[in-house]
Amino acid sequence: MALIVQKFGGSSVGDAESIKRVAKRIAEAKRAGNDVVVVVSAMGDTTDELIDLAREITPLPPQREMDILLTAGERISMSLLAMAITNLGIRAKSFTGQQAGLITDAVHGRARIVDVVPSRIRETVEKGHVAIVAGFQGVNPEAGDVTTLGRGGSDTTAVALAAGLGADVCEIYTDVDGVFTADPRIVPSARKIDRISFEEMLEMAASGAKVLVLRCVEYARRYNVPIHVRSSYAAHPGTLVINPDADVPDAPGLSDALFASLSQPRSHESEQESSMEAPIISGVAHDRSEAKITVVGVPDVPGTAARIFENVASAGVNIDMIVQNVSAAATGKTDISFTLPADQVVEATTALDALRDDVTFESLQIDDQIGKLSLIGAGMKSHPGVSAKFFAALSDANVNIEMISTSEIRISVVTRADSLDDAVRAVHTAFDLDTEAEAVVYAGTGR
Amino acid sequence: MALIVQKFGGSSVGDAESIKRVAKRIAEAKRAGNDVVVVVSAMGDTTDELIDLAREITPLPPQREMDILLTAGERISMSLLAMAITNLGIRAKSFTGQQAGLITDAVHGRARIVDVVPSRIRETVEKGHVAIVAGFQGVNPEAGDVTTLGRGGSDTTAVALAAGLGADVCEIYTDVDGVFTADPRIVPSARKIDRISFEEMLEMAASGAKVLVLRCVEYARRYNVPIHVRSSYAAHPGTLVINPDADVPDAPGLSDALFASLSQPRSHESEQESSMEAPIISGVAHDRSEAKITVVGVPDVPGTAARIFENVASAGVNIDMIVQNVSAAATGKTDISFTLPADQVVEATTALDALRDDVTFESLQIDDQIGKLSLIGAGMKSHPGVSAKFFAALSDANVNIEMISTSEIRISVVTRADSLDDAVRAVHTAFDLDTEAEAVVYAGTGR
Repeated sequence: MALIVQKFGGSSVGDAESIKRVAKRIAEAKRAGNDVVVVVSAMGDTTDELIDLAREITPLPPQREMDILLTAGERISMSLLAMAITNLGIRAKSFTGQQAGLITDAVHGRARIVDVVPSRIRETVEKGHVAIVAGFQGVNPEAGDVTTLGRGGSDTTAVALAAGLGADVCEIYTDVDGVFTADPRIVPSARKIDRISFEEMLEMAASGAKVLVLRCVEYARRYNVPIHVRSSYAAHPGTLVINPDADVPDAPGLSDALFASLSQPRSHESEQESSMEAPIISGVAHDRSEAKITVVGVPDVPGTAARIFENVASAGVNIDMIVQNVSAAATGKTDISFTLPADQVVEATTALDALRDDVTFESLQIDDQIGKLSLIGAGMKSHPGVSAKFFAALSDANVNIEMISTSEIRISVVTRADSLDDAVRAVHTAFDLDTEAEAVVYAGTGR
Repeated sequence: MALIVQKFGGSSVGDAESIKRVAKRIAEAKRAGNDVVVVVSAMGDTTDELIDLAREITPLPPQREMDILLTAGERISMSLLAMAITNLGIRAKSFTGQQAGLITDAVHGRARIVDVVPSRIRETVEKGHVAIVAGFQGVNPEAGDVTTLGRGGSDTTAVALAAGLGADVCEIYTDVDGVFTADPRIVPSARKIDRISFEEMLEMAASGAKVLVLRCVEYARRYNVPIHVRSSYAAHPGTLVINPDADVPDAPGLSDALFASLSQPRSHESEQESSMEAPIISGVAHDRSEAKITVVGVPDVPGTAARIFENVASAGVNIDMIVQNVSAAATGKTDISFTLPADQVVEATTALDALRDDVTFESLQIDDQIGKLSLIGAGMKSHPGVSAKFFAALSDANVNIEMISTSEIRISVVTRADSLDDAVRAVHTAFDLDTEAEAVVYAGTGR
């Protein structure tokens, strides 16, 4: 018997039928003897529809009111889900973020969780009931106002609640079977990963893998909350995101199935590199959401790059990769390129324009036709063969590399956007991550 | 300068355009120098759509969850309205029932207000902002759970908040111009009433006039809150529901316009009965929502009627009119008829069936083809001519009377449903309530 936090996203509760199906799933976990706490997002497109309504009213809605508006979405899904579970003969009660004790700061629209005080949830579970908690929302206790957590907020709610309750596992239900070695829409032969470390998952999320948001993985790593990413349409285990030294948590079907799966060698190990010291490659992530800005003709004097990036960062822009060209000896000038989320280009160029007289650069080039590819795997640095194989694969596929960055467990490159898919497939194959096509199951949605 | 509570119903805030129009209306009252608190219902059909969603999930949703579900509706309308007002350059903040201090008992679905502690609303108004409050909802403080007030809940929220804040007037905005001497859909020549006492309005509401619910008028009378029922589409004054001895409250346009209107004689007085002692007839109300149950063949012994009505009442049925026939000497048996809301017939007949062996009645007859007509006016009892004229008018119109009941300020009769419209028109004309047809304005909706 375990305490399990289950999170269901908007597409899993898109209509009454889906809500009933999710309720059955929850009832099974409960009837198997577990204590169950459920975090749920707003139904399907509710949030987008509410945003559209607000835009019809005003182009600049006050954030406090926007949060009140958007949190209506989870009130609807959570109460309907509680009704559906009750209808199956299991007592269930729904709770807002405030009632569940999700205390946040006062930053409406992207609040940070500062504390979790889930006493009502604990009481509910101790009575043997299922507690349903609204994802994505919390309360700023000074003002007594509802707040929202921003993108990926419901996953973060689930992990935070699991940490606060000391849950055995946090199950994130999604419309794919788990975390894959690459995006199966691009690499049909991608393989589901059975188990991945927090650090590798962090790099995957930071590199564009969309199945979990970075923030949620960061929270899980900090509080050591095992995450189980699995399909809301199928019963088999998905991907366990976990401390590498931890035991497999006790959750419905998970321990047995994972034991069986882990006792078999990983497919690429069994074929070529079965030595104990072989670098373990987790997967290939890609990201199409970034843009590249090049600051042309920057004087190559100390402190220039610092001034540029300080200003851009203080405009709230998340700079990712940076490349500074070798200075041209004749002019003493150089070019500095960096990547950033494409939707922050306006903020960045505004901040840079304000610096034009100060830094005296010549021009700005903006390029939103880039793609980023990342290979992620523990122990990569100690295996120089990895990067050699990586670059060879890209070269064989005629992919031109524009920028490179590396970490302990990741190599990333920037390519043209239109060669990104080829690059992902080439690298995936080169590292023997391919599996039989039928192993990839798109349960239910057909996505 | 006054403190005004304004209430806008669902049809006034049905879409983004309507919300913007209501925002302008609120901004005008605020710019005229008043402090403004607004109570708002859920948009248009939102509540019905949410109820339908719940029914798709389960036929018997738990009431606690139903309340969580339904209160999503006002979150949407109140935040959008606050955005729209802010967009006009006036600071506005929205508040849930809980945040506004509407404390209720724990009866989900039809909670009673037990206290109003509007400290946050007062603070907001004192800062010069407009406070928007969710209608229809409150909080049960013991459980920390949201509750709903049931039918007409938003009107009741508005009056309760006006009482708690000591507001000068509670304006109820609606899609008609005010309270009419009869339903203008049946009597096109019905006249808008400028001013009516709480007591008369109570009788009107209890007799089927739908513009205000009984509960809201009861609350207003108890706390002496002047209500101004007016059109959300037109600026002219509507109907003031007020203590007869009170001064006209200070509200936008109201005092001057009402003074002008009150200084002219009421049309039916000026024509026929201009004496100071003439009975003042407020209007004719009708009700098609009742049914009649006849308990046939009841032993005419003391205590029988009491046992019948005790049982029916304890099943939660609201009995309205009662008639007991003269006992037939031969059998010592009689028939007892009573009217009740048509949607409570099942409860009533179930309660009566359980009594069958005990009371030994012969059969039950159920008749849902009845109509009720009521004439309401202060000082009616001291004018015996009123009832004579009333019955003569019905007789002239060939309307058969099945039941009669009276109070100090009301005469009600039950007729066949299909002769109710004729009956209403006949009585309206007999008491000189008709006015020129153009005086009835169906602003905006065309309803």
